[in-house]
Amino acid sequence: MSDAGLADLRVVALGGGHGLHASLAALRRVVALPTAVVTVADDGGSSGRLRTELGVLPPGDLRMALAALCGDDDWGRTWSRLLQHRFGGDGELAGHVVGNLLIAGLWDVLDDQVEALDWVARLLGARGRVLPMASTPVTMTAQVRGLDPADPARVGEVRGQVAVATTEGRIVSVALDPEQPAPCPQAVTAVGEADWVVLGPGSWYTSVLPHLLVPPLREAVVRGPARVLVVLNLEDQPGETAGYGPEDHLAALVALAPELRVDTVLADPAAVGDPAPLERAAAALGARLVLAEVAEAPGVARHDPQRLAAAYSRVLGTPAPSAGPAAGR
Amino acid sequence: MSDAGLADLRVVALGGGHGLHASLAALRRVVALPTAVVTVADDGGSSGRLRTELGVLPPGDLRMALAALCGDDDWGRTWSRLLQHRFGGDGELAGHVVGNLLIAGLWDVLDDQVEALDWVARLLGARGRVLPMASTPVTMTAQVRGLDPADPARVGEVRGQVAVATTEGRIVSVALDPEQPAPCPQAVTAVGEADWVVLGPGSWYTSVLPHLLVPPLREAVVRGPARVLVVLNLEDQPGETAGYGPEDHLAALVALAPELRVDTVLADPAAVGDPAPLERAAAALGARLVLAEVAEAPGVARHDPQRLAAAYSRVLGTPAPSAGPAAGR
Repeated sequence: MSDAGLADLRVVALGGGHGLHASLAALRRVVALPTAVVTVADDGGSSGRLRTELGVLPPGDLRMALAALCGDDDWGRTWSRLLQHRFGGDGELAGHVVGNLLIAGLWDVLDDQVEALDWVARLLGARGRVLPMASTPVTMTAQVRGLDPADPARVGEVRGQVAVATTEGRIVSVALDPEQPAPCPQAVTAVGEADWVVLGPGSWYTSVLPHLLVPPLREAVVRGPARVLVVLNLEDQPGETAGYGPEDHLAALVALAPELRVDTVLADPAAVGDPAPLERAAAALGARLVLAEVAEAPGVARHDPQRLAAAYSRVLGTPAPSAGPAAGR
Repeated sequence: MSDAGLADLRVVALGGGHGLHASLAALRRVVALPTAVVTVADDGGSSGRLRTELGVLPPGDLRMALAALCGDDDWGRTWSRLLQHRFGGDGELAGHVVGNLLIAGLWDVLDDQVEALDWVARLLGARGRVLPMASTPVTMTAQVRGLDPADPARVGEVRGQVAVATTEGRIVSVALDPEQPAPCPQAVTAVGEADWVVLGPGSWYTSVLPHLLVPPLREAVVRGPARVLVVLNLEDQPGETAGYGPEDHLAALVALAPELRVDTVLADPAAVGDPAPLERAAAALGARLVLAEVAEAPGVARHDPQRLAAAYSRVLGTPAPSAGPAAGR
């Protein structure tokens, strides 16, 4: 596939937080206009306060995704810096992030979540679009084993994204409350029309998997034409995925969406060790495993945007397995 | 003077609050790039909270002036609406205005007051520039007679813009604390290079006169080449100017800056009644009196931007008295 063909691909990245930010920072180097579909389950920090006070979607993950797509010039970078700025001190604004306040204000003014996000994208000169995974705030819940030292086999419920992300037990399953949140129609359409859907990297249970709990979005991922790329994390995460190896991340995905077919699993060799078990786990999902050095350095748990972009180019440029070698797209 | 000549005039409007907003909404129809120099004494509302919490200039009057200059298109109007939006409810954000938070955030990020205001002007596609009258927050104080019912002749001090604006006594004099606040160099330069300086309309003691208490700014107004236009209010204001007639406003100006020479005093005939006393008061300042219907309707205390613009055109287009009829500018 030519680079021009790559640039025109419709790629939708599902996630939230720093993982999605890293993915978008790489994707924007490969495709002209990536779309991000962002979790709206956050209940901590500035986002959690705004959600509670104003009844709005938690804006933080949306803001971070927008910042990742900001225009690559003085204009885009300046507004991105403002959006990401957090007030200090110990007053009523301390900890609030300017972009969260700006997005919440635009939601009030325009009374249209997606239009407001599109305005912020325009402000940033953003390359691409950022959409929420649902139109109303959702609460994450998790069934967790091992919360009670007296009865380590007992499974109990943990509620709220922060609580789930930092649980000291082992997550058995996750769900959303409400179970069927109002979808964002533009997000469902974007996934349904995508060439590729990218899942991960990011907090696995609290940023990457929640999208598959929104029924119309899950349908669009599972039944739509998009090829699915799963990008594994560089390490496990204290709390929600403590002790997880790469295969365990895939197992969590399978447990949540057994009908999902995956095209490619992308992982960093330093995070994998012996690739054979992961290759088998990927194959069980119908996927090939691509190993590529995408960390800033071996053993460092931050993605390097340039390296991740190179890996994305390689994966997204691969013809679909069902297409003949000369068929192209 | 031709309209092109009018458009190129360098006009600096001194004031704050709704009065300055009205003046700029008119001025922008007459000159291409008006400059506003805005009071920084506010200690109430959202501005007062930000000033106290973050130690910044009170941004509210600056924000309102910027909004008045916003681009006359969907872009400018949308961002202006956001800037002016006030959060409701009863939480920690209630009463805060989005533009105030945005300006305060930019001050943190850019660490340059004027550069940050210029960025907001760019965001709005603003026609013109907005500058603070000083680089540090100031506190207004007033000597007020009649605060003590038991001793109505006694003069006591009132501190803070809100307290001064709402005093139930009669203001004898006003001052700033600190007495010599750090000036904003760009504001001093703008006044020093102006063709016209416009004082008022607006809260007389708390928005219009404070600029003359900043020594370098006062020097630039009094000794600079700019002709001075004083725009009188449409009525007195409960609190700071309760019971004031038009002449009393001029008397307060003379008391504060006896060396000031004024070119034109502009007033609405419905607010003046018999013009003879006001003509004499204007003449004592070296000024001619121009009466023009600038209110939305007779007896309504809001300026009509179109009518005020017509009056500005007429005044700003008048050759200076010292120039011969054919000399032009």
